[in-house]
Formats: sequence, C-alpha cells, structure tokens
Amino acid sequence: MPRETPVDSRQEILRTAARLFQQRGYDATSMNDVAAALKLSKGGLYHHFQSKDEILFEIMDHAMEITEERVLTPVRSIADPDERLRALIRLHIEVVLSPRDREITVMLHENHPLPPALRKRINTRKKEYVHFLEKLLAEVQRTRHAKGSVSPRAAAFALLGMMNWIYQWYKPEGELQAPNLVPQFTEMVFGGILA
Amino acid sequence: MPRETPVDSRQEILRTAARLFQQRGYDATSMNDVAAALKLSKGGLYHHFQSKDEILFEIMDHAMEITEERVLTPVRSIADPDERLRALIRLHIEVVLSPRDREITVMLHENHPLPPALRKRINTRKKEYVHFLEKLLAEVQRTRHAKGSVSPRAAAFALLGMMNWIYQWYKPEGELQAPNLVPQFTEMVFGGILA
Repeated sequence: MPRETPVDSRQEILRTAARLFQQRGYDATSMNDVAAALKLSKGGLYHHFQSKDEILFEIMDHAMEITEERVLTPVRSIADPDERLRALIRLHIEVVLSPRDREITVMLHENHPLPPALRKRINTRKKEYVHFLEKLLAEVQRTRHAKGSVSPRAAAFALLGMMNWIYQWYKPEGELQAPNLVPQFTEMVFGGILA
Repeated sequence: MPRETPVDSRQEILRTAARLFQQRGYDATSMNDVAAALKLSKGGLYHHFQSKDEILFEIMDHAMEITEERVLTPVRSIADPDERLRALIRLHIEVVLSPRDREITVMLHENHPLPPALRKRINTRKKEYVHFLEKLLAEVQRTRHAKGSVSPRAAAFALLGMMNWIYQWYKPEGELQAPNLVPQFTEMVFGGILA
C-alpha cells in the first residue's frame, strides 16, 4: 500500500533510486519502481522529482557534493603539498569505499546520456576536481624537483583512474580494504607501481 | 525499407549495437533500433542473435577476444619481464584508444546486469587477464628487487584502473594521444606518478 507521508528526505529517495539503478540498470528502472521501493505513491515521488533524469542528475550532483565536503574541503586546509596529496588519496578512496555513499558515488560513472544542460553542470563539477588535482600534482612535482617526464594532467587522470576504478573490482569481503589499500596506492603514486 | 540480404558479418551487428548502446543507453535501445540501424528486418536480426542480452554478451566476449589477440598473444612471446610489461601497457592503451574497436571494448564497463551464466563467463575471462597481469607484475618486482610495499594484486588493479579509465576522459581532439600517453603511463608505473 502506498503511503502519502513524506519520506525522511530527498537523500533517502536518491539513495534508494541509486541502488535500484545499479541493480536493474537505469533505463530498466521506472519511476513506479522507485516509488514502490520507497512505499510512496507515484504522485508522492513526483512531488520531489519531476523526472527520472532529474533524479539521476541529483544523485550525481550529490555525489560531487560528498566529494567536495569530504575530500576537497579538508584537503584545502593542509599547507604542505605532499601531505595534501596523501590526504586526498586517503579521503578519496574512503569516499569510494564508504558503504553509506557507495550507491550514490558510483552513479558518477553511469553512462546514460543526461539532457545536455544537466550533463554540462555535472561535467563542470568533475572538471573542477580534475583541475584541483592537476594543480596539486604540479605543486608536488615542483617541490620534489621531479624530472618532468609526466605531465600533471596525465598524472591526474591516472590517479583518478586508479581510485575510481576500485568500484569495478572491490569486494567487501576481499583482502584489499581501505587500511591496506590506501598505503599501497599512496606508495604507487610516490614510488611507482613496482615499489 | 528493411532488406533481407545478410549483413557483412556478426561483427558489423555487434559494432552497430555497441554504438547505439553507448549513444542511447543499453536499456533504451530496442532490438528494433538495432535492426533499423543495420537496415535489417527484425527477423533478420533475430536470425543472428536471440536477444539483446546475447548481443551484449557477444560484444563483451568479442572485446575480450580483441584484448587477448592484440595484447596477451604478442606479449606472451616476450622473454624479458620488464619489456613484457612495457609492451602490455602500450598494447592495452592502443586497444583502448583504437577508433575501430573503442565502441566494442568500452562495453566491457557496461554495468547492465547480464543473466548470471553469461556474466560468469565474461567475469572468468576478465579474471584471467587480471591474473596474467598480477603474475607479470610479481615477476617484474622480483627481477627489480622491489621492496615489496605494493602487492602485485593491488598494482594490477591500479594499472588496469589507469588504463581502462581512459575512456572516461579521452578526447580524439585532445592533447593526450597514444604517442605521448604511453610513455607517460609507462613512466608512472616504473617511477611513480610524480616522476
């Protein structure tokens, strides 16, 4: 039976929708499915979100907010570039592995084509993150007198790839977990994959 | 007007389907859409593939075949572990960037849930690749007397992440192309992201 009482928050809707999108695929999940999983009427769901695209956009936007709050904000206050990079690697991996937010953040990699205006807004936020990382890597390279055979841009994309790819292989019951993964990934960044 | 003449090959069907899946999303693309894009009747398409899931499976399987043919086979014949790893990085990136096969190989990252039996077959092939890379990295670490702070498994996932993530940021008109990307990624593996 659908209920008309408001769900706790828009975040609860986003989290449930993100989980369904991952389980069944974005296109195969209807607004009805999302409403049913939340025990909401379809009207109740449409009261919060006008379309499925809007939900997907809000999930991605929320994922970028989480990243800004938990990675960028704490990292910005660290003066030493080396420490700033180490903290970024640790906090970014922690967000990727967070059981609470994984359903949300993994949706950043959903390839469903959003309407151009919405897609542009997400891409702008993603680009800001890449640029922050690029500038940080350039700074670390300068202070370490790196020989410059790797551009900060290629390094930023490589590091993002290492970290964002985790969702493809990570198993909650596996051997690789944040406490041993963070130091190994940090070591690879500073000393190479063969360290 | 649908034609009944056979299309050139199953590969042509797979390539067209892969392109549509990426443009419109897997679930939003119907068998009718695939048939229409190929100027085939729906019956003509079903003559080759019984379902959309079968097409997705065959795309992924073909992508793994491409990887085996163009990366694993040539790499296996290289005796020196360092050179074997360098070749693997170069050839893997070339497959990822290949304009001809990009539509096929990118589908390996499609998260649509395949029927369990089909998904298992793809995952088995993916795992074989990870294990090959893991063993190669262990061998390179041994010959280089690495201090062992990075496990071959974590290194394998990191390297795959760096390389497979390329499709997320790559632009055919961008500055980063195979000729400058391959040496930079190789340098990062051997010397760290800050080299």
